[in-house]
Amino acid sequence: MSKYNNTRLLQALKRQTIDVPPVWLMRQAGRYLPEYRALRTKAGDFMTLCQTPQLATEVTLQPLRRFDLDAAILFSDILTIPHAMGLGLSFTEGEGPQFAKRIETLRDVKALPTLEVEEDLSYVLEAVRMIQEELHGSVPLIGFAGSPWTVACYMIEGSGHKNFINARKMAYQAPEVLTALLEKLTIATTAYLKGQISAGVNVVMLFDTWGGLLTPAYYQSFSLATMQKIVANLKADPHTAHTPIILFSKGAAVNLEAMADSGADALGIDWTTDLSMARKRVGTKVCLQGNLDPALLFSTPEKIQAAVKTLLNEWGQHPGLIVNLGHGIEQHTPIENVQALIAAVHGASYSS
Amino acid sequence: MSKYNNTRLLQALKRQTIDVPPVWLMRQAGRYLPEYRALRTKAGDFMTLCQTPQLATEVTLQPLRRFDLDAAILFSDILTIPHAMGLGLSFTEGEGPQFAKRIETLRDVKALPTLEVEEDLSYVLEAVRMIQEELHGSVPLIGFAGSPWTVACYMIEGSGHKNFINARKMAYQAPEVLTALLEKLTIATTAYLKGQISAGVNVVMLFDTWGGLLTPAYYQSFSLATMQKIVANLKADPHTAHTPIILFSKGAAVNLEAMADSGADALGIDWTTDLSMARKRVGTKVCLQGNLDPALLFSTPEKIQAAVKTLLNEWGQHPGLIVNLGHGIEQHTPIENVQALIAAVHGASYSS
Repeated sequence: MSKYNNTRLLQALKRQTIDVPPVWLMRQAGRYLPEYRALRTKAGDFMTLCQTPQLATEVTLQPLRRFDLDAAILFSDILTIPHAMGLGLSFTEGEGPQFAKRIETLRDVKALPTLEVEEDLSYVLEAVRMIQEELHGSVPLIGFAGSPWTVACYMIEGSGHKNFINARKMAYQAPEVLTALLEKLTIATTAYLKGQISAGVNVVMLFDTWGGLLTPAYYQSFSLATMQKIVANLKADPHTAHTPIILFSKGAAVNLEAMADSGADALGIDWTTDLSMARKRVGTKVCLQGNLDPALLFSTPEKIQAAVKTLLNEWGQHPGLIVNLGHGIEQHTPIENVQALIAAVHGASYSS
Repeated sequence: MSKYNNTRLLQALKRQTIDVPPVWLMRQAGRYLPEYRALRTKAGDFMTLCQTPQLATEVTLQPLRRFDLDAAILFSDILTIPHAMGLGLSFTEGEGPQFAKRIETLRDVKALPTLEVEEDLSYVLEAVRMIQEELHGSVPLIGFAGSPWTVACYMIEGSGHKNFINARKMAYQAPEVLTALLEKLTIATTAYLKGQISAGVNVVMLFDTWGGLLTPAYYQSFSLATMQKIVANLKADPHTAHTPIILFSKGAAVNLEAMADSGADALGIDWTTDLSMARKRVGTKVCLQGNLDPALLFSTPEKIQAAVKTLLNEWGQHPGLIVNLGHGIEQHTPIENVQALIAAVHGASYSS
């Protein structure tokens, strides 16, 4: 038996039949929580929260004190790797991430140091250990990384530009530079996730936020292929082979079948795709995670309850569902509506 | 026979077999052209270009002097309707559109005046007449409007925020306000497109840039349903029944089958979907327009030629293809690459 009191997430990831589906929310530790905003103000900036294990631990645990969530997710950022490689990451309120340096040439890629996870990202590993101590096995802890393509988007663009045209241009203008960058990031990301697993996370998730900006052919060669390598690397190592992997490519639903063949245990589905349709397309190969519209959480508890009921009814008796939003929770989401969502999932059952 | 010298676009829209597919580019009259930038600098701002028929005519014709395009598209903006309704549109360089007022309540919606196209948007109709005079039947002229949902996004948000969370929230929080707004916009858009057709445009296109931000259910009820009404209104009027309609919902490929049932003659396909796959899904119901990645135009003439060849080979012998980009042409696109794209399409043939 598992050492966890709450095994719903791990069971769902194995596509086992369980009482009710697990529920957690992308960015559940975040700005919609007043206690998060207070801590961030006190810390001064976002990177201090990420880089101080005590603070990252506190932020990770905040939503679990309020809500009956079935998982914790490490509080961190997908850009810790390039920051550790010396690109100089900063966050300005309302502006998003900004790098001091950006990647333009093969020389820039070659100049990137090899990531030494235990040293360069020790603050993340320390946070994982502290969080697990605090969780006491109550719920599993999800670790994560950005996909190589998504992280490369920011490294090439230098910031979070809405359509990442410079990264997309590089795929056509200098594919050898992009490929070299992705190779470095694939190695670094594999090492990073192995480090997180070794420090104690129970599940890992790859956030491919910008995979959906690519043509299907380029999605496969520049985004999915690198994620497949990471998955294969983790599955080939006896220390990490049994840790479930969730892969989330936002806005890339046309590629669902290919994603299901990635070797990942679960796929995140965004809110613009029908979850039952997604299940029909991927069959029983993978568990699916999603996909309520984050905007739904601005309605009423009654409407949220109805939406959850619809989602679960359409899903039916199939195992392998993790309820989540289809994207990160929005900043001004009312707390009582989050409560209503989780209660609605836990109040449901596969048989009713 | 048609009065047009170049009938490729109109024939493709009827799914007739033609020598080579027609090609035009979304935002072909735009910032990548030095002569456009010069005129915009002279005019002072974007709205002056839109609102001065002589200038809008000149800008519309600029790409046709350089390239062997198979269609002209009216130079204008999808936000002319809310501007005409008194919301006070302005454009700041690099900032995108901004409204002086925004829509929040039912009172705001009710306060919107009924659009009197002949008066309020006379500058657009005058531009259409002037362009047609200059075109002398050389190529057909495409008119356009934003979809009610997309225009509502900007009216509710007040600007071009990347995920239009306020518009999406309204769908859940105050659907009656959104519905009332969409109804007004549906009526206004129908009248606007009828006005454009009456002034002389040969084809109309509905730009649903933000349809892909909605769940499939909400896409159907808030975006597609309003476009269907507009299509039905145009098809029911003998003066507009024979003008082909192109519908373009960016990022909404999961809904392709529903779009194909909209009554539109053609669907625009963005670059993140495989065009041949799209054809397999919609069959012969509609013509398809697309879908090269705008980032491709930053590569080389040779790569562009190869990409066009791949697209045409995969498409095969089927009629009903209009070659275009999958999104508007990017600002810094090299002119010689646009040339290469058009030459590659016109140098191809269905039979080789």
